[in-house]
Amino acid sequence: MGLNVTQKLIKEHLISGEMSPGEEIGLKIDQTLTQDATGTLVMLELEAMELERAQTEVSAQYVDHNIIQVDSKNPDDHLFLRSATKKFGMFYSQPGNGVSHPVHMQRLAKPGATLLGSDSHTCANGSMGMLAMGAGGIDVAMAVAGEPIYIKMPEVWGVRLAGELPDWVSAKDVILELLRRHSVKGGAGTIIEYYGPGLASLSAMDRHVIANMGAELGATTSVFPSDGEIKRYMASQKRGEEWKPLTADTDAKYDRQEEIDLSSLVPLIAKPSSPGNVVPVEEVEGEPIYQSYIGSSANPGYRDFAVVAEIVKGKSIASGVSFDINPSSRQILTDLINEGHITSLLSAGGRLHQAGCNGCIGMGQAPATGRNSLRTTPRNFPGRSGTKEDSVFLCSPETAGASALTGKITDPRKLEQDYPEISEPEKPEVDLSLLETPVPEEEAKQTDLHKSDNITSIPDMEPLPEFIEVPVLLYLKDDISTDEILAGGSRVLPYRSNLAEISKFSFEIIDPNYYDRATALMEEGGHAIVGGTNYGQGSSREHAALAPRYLGLRVVLVKDFARIHWQNLVNFGILPITFKDDADYDKLEEGDFITLENIREVLLNEEEISAKVRSKKLDIPCEHMMSKRQIDIVLAGGLINWVKERS
Amino acid sequence: MGLNVTQKLIKEHLISGEMSPGEEIGLKIDQTLTQDATGTLVMLELEAMELERAQTEVSAQYVDHNIIQVDSKNPDDHLFLRSATKKFGMFYSQPGNGVSHPVHMQRLAKPGATLLGSDSHTCANGSMGMLAMGAGGIDVAMAVAGEPIYIKMPEVWGVRLAGELPDWVSAKDVILELLRRHSVKGGAGTIIEYYGPGLASLSAMDRHVIANMGAELGATTSVFPSDGEIKRYMASQKRGEEWKPLTADTDAKYDRQEEIDLSSLVPLIAKPSSPGNVVPVEEVEGEPIYQSYIGSSANPGYRDFAVVAEIVKGKSIASGVSFDINPSSRQILTDLINEGHITSLLSAGGRLHQAGCNGCIGMGQAPATGRNSLRTTPRNFPGRSGTKEDSVFLCSPETAGASALTGKITDPRKLEQDYPEISEPEKPEVDLSLLETPVPEEEAKQTDLHKSDNITSIPDMEPLPEFIEVPVLLYLKDDISTDEILAGGSRVLPYRSNLAEISKFSFEIIDPNYYDRATALMEEGGHAIVGGTNYGQGSSREHAALAPRYLGLRVVLVKDFARIHWQNLVNFGILPITFKDDADYDKLEEGDFITLENIREVLLNEEEISAKVRSKKLDIPCEHMMSKRQIDIVLAGGLINWVKERS
Repeated sequence: MGLNVTQKLIKEHLISGEMSPGEEIGLKIDQTLTQDATGTLVMLELEAMELERAQTEVSAQYVDHNIIQVDSKNPDDHLFLRSATKKFGMFYSQPGNGVSHPVHMQRLAKPGATLLGSDSHTCANGSMGMLAMGAGGIDVAMAVAGEPIYIKMPEVWGVRLAGELPDWVSAKDVILELLRRHSVKGGAGTIIEYYGPGLASLSAMDRHVIANMGAELGATTSVFPSDGEIKRYMASQKRGEEWKPLTADTDAKYDRQEEIDLSSLVPLIAKPSSPGNVVPVEEVEGEPIYQSYIGSSANPGYRDFAVVAEIVKGKSIASGVSFDINPSSRQILTDLINEGHITSLLSAGGRLHQAGCNGCIGMGQAPATGRNSLRTTPRNFPGRSGTKEDSVFLCSPETAGASALTGKITDPRKLEQDYPEISEPEKPEVDLSLLETPVPEEEAKQTDLHKSDNITSIPDMEPLPEFIEVPVLLYLKDDISTDEILAGGSRVLPYRSNLAEISKFSFEIIDPNYYDRATALMEEGGHAIVGGTNYGQGSSREHAALAPRYLGLRVVLVKDFARIHWQNLVNFGILPITFKDDADYDKLEEGDFITLENIREVLLNEEEISAKVRSKKLDIPCEHMMSKRQIDIVLAGGLINWVKERS
Repeated sequence: MGLNVTQKLIKEHLISGEMSPGEEIGLKIDQTLTQDATGTLVMLELEAMELERAQTEVSAQYVDHNIIQVDSKNPDDHLFLRSATKKFGMFYSQPGNGVSHPVHMQRLAKPGATLLGSDSHTCANGSMGMLAMGAGGIDVAMAVAGEPIYIKMPEVWGVRLAGELPDWVSAKDVILELLRRHSVKGGAGTIIEYYGPGLASLSAMDRHVIANMGAELGATTSVFPSDGEIKRYMASQKRGEEWKPLTADTDAKYDRQEEIDLSSLVPLIAKPSSPGNVVPVEEVEGEPIYQSYIGSSANPGYRDFAVVAEIVKGKSIASGVSFDINPSSRQILTDLINEGHITSLLSAGGRLHQAGCNGCIGMGQAPATGRNSLRTTPRNFPGRSGTKEDSVFLCSPETAGASALTGKITDPRKLEQDYPEISEPEKPEVDLSLLETPVPEEEAKQTDLHKSDNITSIPDMEPLPEFIEVPVLLYLKDDISTDEILAGGSRVLPYRSNLAEISKFSFEIIDPNYYDRATALMEEGGHAIVGGTNYGQGSSREHAALAPRYLGLRVVLVKDFARIHWQNLVNFGILPITFKDDADYDKLEEGDFITLENIREVLLNEEEISAKVRSKKLDIPCEHMMSKRQIDIVLAGGLINWVKERS
């Protein structure tokens, strides 16, 4: 039977497992991508693993998130990241060069390769015929160290594109249409593969737009074929020789099927405060706007800015509108300048910002209280803009441009002008200095990590003891989220590279004394936590496992786990077990000492784990969901130790 | 006898007093300038004064400081400022348009006029044959309301410029030379007036550079004539009809004299951490740099960016250097783009930032810990960059550009290239949309002030009572600074428009309970503060008077006052008195009740004020330095009431 593009990519990189949906498969990773907000911890993990040199074909570190420098913390992190890329043999992209995803696409993406990135929009490079996936930091660190990534084999969801987009409708409306149909969980457990005749009219960067926001559908990733358009695109980046074709076999099948007739689409908009809250622009027309925001990895292409520039050229935006222009890369900015588009945007009243993620991740450009913000970005979750109870709409550049002119939400088809024909610049800028290339091994060996006082190495972690007897320090209810385990936000995040400091915020929302109580027990073997169902829901942040582990957490016993946090517990050497009988939850209380014996033997050989509470004469039957590989990881004290043991 | 330019400007605007150095003179103000960091309070003061419409020829509000929007506070302030400019009939410049001083020069500055601004670099517009002075916010509010500004008549310090600048030496080096000769207090009590044949080769924007950093010499302001160059400049801004000549009479005299032979100057640099710490660049050559920073009101001109662009054109900056480009206005940015200079800067590795004050006032672009930052900005006081114990050098664009290329401090004369000849663009952009013009009175009347929860009106203040009996709440030592009275910084400043909130920080460094103790006494008539010499030294921030006044401070009795804080106390209706005999200070202690009787009559008719402490049977003779006008202000309860009473 013929294979689709996804299956070809997976087959080519399969290291373990069977390619049938739901099975755990191990995949070889060719390229990694890290950004600065997650990358510092990845580099500290590589240091702890005693990695000598990246084992991937390409590992690139971008600085695009924390590029507002109000004090020394961010610039110190940049120096640290740069030193780490030298030490480990990676590419480094300086602040101001742009957003990781479009820069990676311009300079490093390669059809047929796998890419793992510590950013949820890593999937954007699926536009290039790659298998490009977001993951937690330590998974990326593992990939850098040459380890496979383990995932459950997803279903392949074939989306056939037919027809051509009408005027004033663009790629953003395609992905908004899928979100309109399926909302934010509609893609869970799938890889979305686009195919069909409609592809012919979608440029590489259009495909980037569509692949990027596959993340908002909950998909593992999105995949496009590598066809003539990708060949053209790579040649325009002076990387034509790196192109290779990758298309589905003619008799390829998909696990799920969908069709979109591009010619039937209309301008769409996601209303506050979910990317799944999609309606036609017409339905919300006339709403006054405070802000029209252009940019981000969701609309990063030359075309996405140029079309807005042509819409506003020779006109003035509505008085009082904040018209924020956020170039996605220095190279694209230069092209836009050379073709006169930035002048059009400025003359109309634009605010031109530094190339980077910027307001898309709440770093500046927050809207005023109670005012509507119209953005070409991928997400409008509540408060993400930086403003409490914000009102953010997501739309295409066309809709954002038209609305900037009128000062209210406007269907761009109502503009009394011809739809601008945008062609790529004849001589596009190719900015080779965007990336510092890996230094030779000799130089790498002489490089020390540059650490400010706010950057501390990850301390050594002990293996899991054979015998554990620890008190239940927290006895928690259902649905504990990682925000409760370790909050995010500007108060906590500056310590993302400082485990000793960030651990002080652990569980503070639930119990402000947790930190003190936990540290008091560290010498005596640590502590356990007992909880209900859905333990660790929410964000994937790995600090929510690492910080409590640092404070002596050894065992988490709950009714069941949220998937990613469970994975993070394993990765940091915390034993995650569940009640066989949920009724046993009620027999426990804070302060009970839980005893686990012969742990190695039990985990490796038994179905059941016995958790004893001697004072209550309890013997509670427990179980776990770990694979053999994961048992080894937990026994070793976490992934870092596991890697070191094997090297 | 002939008059110099300064004397002509003063004579033309003199409302009261004699033009002899040291005498108090009142001057009519034609134009005002406010920026966002100080402007919100100015607008609240105008509201409290119940102003209907600005009484000046031009009042312009710029948003250039707080243009990083990490939450809703700054954008809410912007909306408030915009609504206030509509209500009061002012010009409004949106965030992203640029720095107040160059934008004002481009669009509104007028030879022969006076300009008062709530920003210490307002003096930059002295380049235009104006008398342009920085002042506290309420002084500017008064000027908006049509009141004169009162200053001590300064000495006029004539600086004769001869010769022409050599290649690689520019206007910044002229003002650095004056700072090298006289350091940061050398201009105190003077207005610096430039004249002589050397002017012929200095453009209007070159003069802006020199006038701007007159602030660093401590001068009241700097003045240039309005000559043919100003005529050319205004014509290039399509405002030729507003030009008028203003030059010194041939027999004009100066109170002080100085000469600079421009042809003898070399590239200069101010070392950390004072603008007065000036040496030739040669002396510090070779120091490695982390950052080369271009922009700010101290080097805002087209030329200042273009010369750097030409220096780096076709080359790459040194690896790892953060090369930060901060356009000073949207108009200049557009010109630079149209002439290809921004492309040169980007291609060399520049980070292009939004037009505004940015890192010059610590809003972003902080250097890494322990690294050298080279900047074309006016100030390098410790920590101003945002980084503790920073190491900031001030220099010309030529030096910053040369050093960006080499990665270390470099005398630009060492570059192996010809000195770039920069000519102004042939068709300069004139961006009329930079400023929203005042709305007609009818529309203004219908405008309400837009206030978020963080913006609160200034409450009514009572007149000074005839009889005061209040306890000494704080008994303080010598040299109390306004930083101790009310701290600055990012913790406190977000509440600059919220008196109730910012007052909670009053004296917290000295006594964390001050706020609670003061509020407890508010119903009972308030409190007094007793201090030593030099009370209120440091920053001019008016919140340091307003916040304690809000908490019930009625009298400050000290050995002597720092000048500006003394003025602020008067302006906010706090009675500032001094011991006739400093030895009486020792007789007082915290908790003593001070009694003042028949205050109006005593202030108006007596030389001496008697402060009684009944419990100790003390009768302490005190005095004050207020003019009749200032006595009226204090009796009225402050300037706001005084204005209202007179309207």
